Amino acid sequence: MTRHDAFDLRDTLKTLFVERGAAPEVAAITAEVLVEGDLLGHHTHGVKLANGYLKDLAAGHASGDPARLEIHQTSPVAALFDGHYLLGPYLVRRALDQCREAAATFGIGMVSLKRSHHIACLAAYLQPLVEANLMPLILTSDPAVASVAPFGGLDRVYTPNPLAIGIPGREQPLLIDVSMSTITNGTVAKTRAAGERLAHPAILTGHGEASADPEDYFAEPPGSILPLGELAFGHKGFALGLMVEALTSALSGFGRKDSPEGWGASVMVMVIDPAKFGGTDAFLDETDHLARQCHGSRPADPERPVRLPGEAALARRRAAMENGLELPQDVLDSLREAVQGSSLAGQTAFG
Amino acid sequence: MTRHDAFDLRDTLKTLFVERGAAPEVAAITAEVLVEGDLLGHHTHGVKLANGYLKDLAAGHASGDPARLEIHQTSPVAALFDGHYLLGPYLVRRALDQCREAAATFGIGMVSLKRSHHIACLAAYLQPLVEANLMPLILTSDPAVASVAPFGGLDRVYTPNPLAIGIPGREQPLLIDVSMSTITNGTVAKTRAAGERLAHPAILTGHGEASADPEDYFAEPPGSILPLGELAFGHKGFALGLMVEALTSALSGFGRKDSPEGWGASVMVMVIDPAKFGGTDAFLDETDHLARQCHGSRPADPERPVRLPGEAALARRRAAMENGLELPQDVLDSLREAVQGSSLAGQTAFG
Repeated sequence: MTRHDAFDLRDTLKTLFVERGAAPEVAAITAEVLVEGDLLGHHTHGVKLANGYLKDLAAGHASGDPARLEIHQTSPVAALFDGHYLLGPYLVRRALDQCREAAATFGIGMVSLKRSHHIACLAAYLQPLVEANLMPLILTSDPAVASVAPFGGLDRVYTPNPLAIGIPGREQPLLIDVSMSTITNGTVAKTRAAGERLAHPAILTGHGEASADPEDYFAEPPGSILPLGELAFGHKGFALGLMVEALTSALSGFGRKDSPEGWGASVMVMVIDPAKFGGTDAFLDETDHLARQCHGSRPADPERPVRLPGEAALARRRAAMENGLELPQDVLDSLREAVQGSSLAGQTAFG
Repeated sequence: MTRHDAFDLRDTLKTLFVERGAAPEVAAITAEVLVEGDLLGHHTHGVKLANGYLKDLAAGHASGDPARLEIHQTSPVAALFDGHYLLGPYLVRRALDQCREAAATFGIGMVSLKRSHHIACLAAYLQPLVEANLMPLILTSDPAVASVAPFGGLDRVYTPNPLAIGIPGREQPLLIDVSMSTITNGTVAKTRAAGERLAHPAILTGHGEASADPEDYFAEPPGSILPLGELAFGHKGFALGLMVEALTSALSGFGRKDSPEGWGASVMVMVIDPAKFGGTDAFLDETDHLARQCHGSRPADPERPVRLPGEAALARRRAAMENGLELPQDVLDSLREAVQGSSLAGQTAFG
């Protein structure tokens, strides 16, 4: 398999976004965040998304113009961003920067972001803040999509609603990025396209049964994605999904009630500085202690020692930065399609 | 079954706490929060706890002296509370009051609370803030206890780690209170005491298998409580459990690394005011819309329509306030024991 240089990939993507009218800073940040997704191993939420972003830029649904961002600063620590469908990675980075500045003085900063375009892989934003001993938090929902049913119900109402948080540690920082559903829309689509079955029954059929067949999601009556906790404990995943809805769409004032269309996101971004609470050193000591306790827990399967959230992703990232990044065929195909419509056609490894 | 008046119960508990040396305001708040737990139907985390709190007051591990609370205010929106094992309900109420004041000006207030005594039922704190159109958030872990193993591991490392959030709504406010594990320590103990099996396999045996037998938790090698998501998706519940550890113990600077003993809690309290983000009316409109969508989802079982988090609890509360509160036998037994050691012996419905 061909290995790609992460910096070359970023340059390629940046060029593609600029050619579709994005400002250089918007293009650069979006390119960086997408490649970061693949570096961490989240190939459904990395470079593969570029083609869709480019199409939305061409169609005028997504914007690459930073002047469109409207900031309502209501206090030194709180702001509402109206993103007017600017590319999501740029908006999330701007929100994180602002929260980081507030946190340096106040211990916390928080931005509620409405009408963002898609924000890609949440884990891709965490590392720079974690390395500065800060805790970034990102929650998101897409008010234009419904794929998860409320616990006990059959009709889709909300989205997988992921939550990401970075936890600083000296030995092993934790990068958490989990949806409040069993699986994401992307996994359903990818598994179906490959003609495969899901690893676990994560679909609720239109008749109320758990199923590992992604076709059941698209059947008549339609299925839905099971909340985290599935049939036994799904009331908890449902509650956590509603929490994300409230902290994203409701808090931003723009959500399902507004019947938005097209790719979008409601987002909450927060940065917490442990220095303003129990102190950075004590925080790091506690993370290190907890990480050692987890690693020290005897594995159920001797071949598979306990792994902390982000541990495998950060190892993959180190290897990819050193030896080059391997991209799955579907990502390459998507990138090739994007390159062919640009001035780079015939001049890159992607055709 | 005898029905009890909630106000009488509060008075009884308040008297018991005052007789064990708690200041009247500490005693009153603790009594109110415990009774509130039962009103909402959470009988393992209500009045039943009083006896244990009283014993810890007598033993000197818990304190009822509000002067022991040490507040390190590091910014107008951030504070570290050192609770010195004051009764938890008093500390959490103080933290919520402080966060509420900060949120009125800044949109957000946050307190990290270390060395609290046990904080009872998290849902019991939410309603007054939700009725003021605010979002309270409470997260807690107990650094002296380990009952959940890291995903893939067999040795217990951390606690169920609940998260509570109140979401204002005109038609149906949401009260969320869920642990990041399948079940709580209390449910394991209660089911075992009753000689019953759990409703679902929520125990991981010491050999790595899921089990519904609570005895497997106490067997040799010992079992643990499965994280939310169980064997298939437990990596998500594990990640969320670590998030709560970080936002509570690590952030407060006091945790498992300090090997604390006895009943205690690390707590994070936050209050968010939607008025400082997308606006209160838009927030309420979105909650109402989402609640209607959920209620409108066709039920998998026609006998069991979709219920929102807190919906059943609030209905129970209304009925109990109107017709009196029914307490399970184990709660009554525990209360009787507490009353018998007090000046109230022979003067109440509890002997």
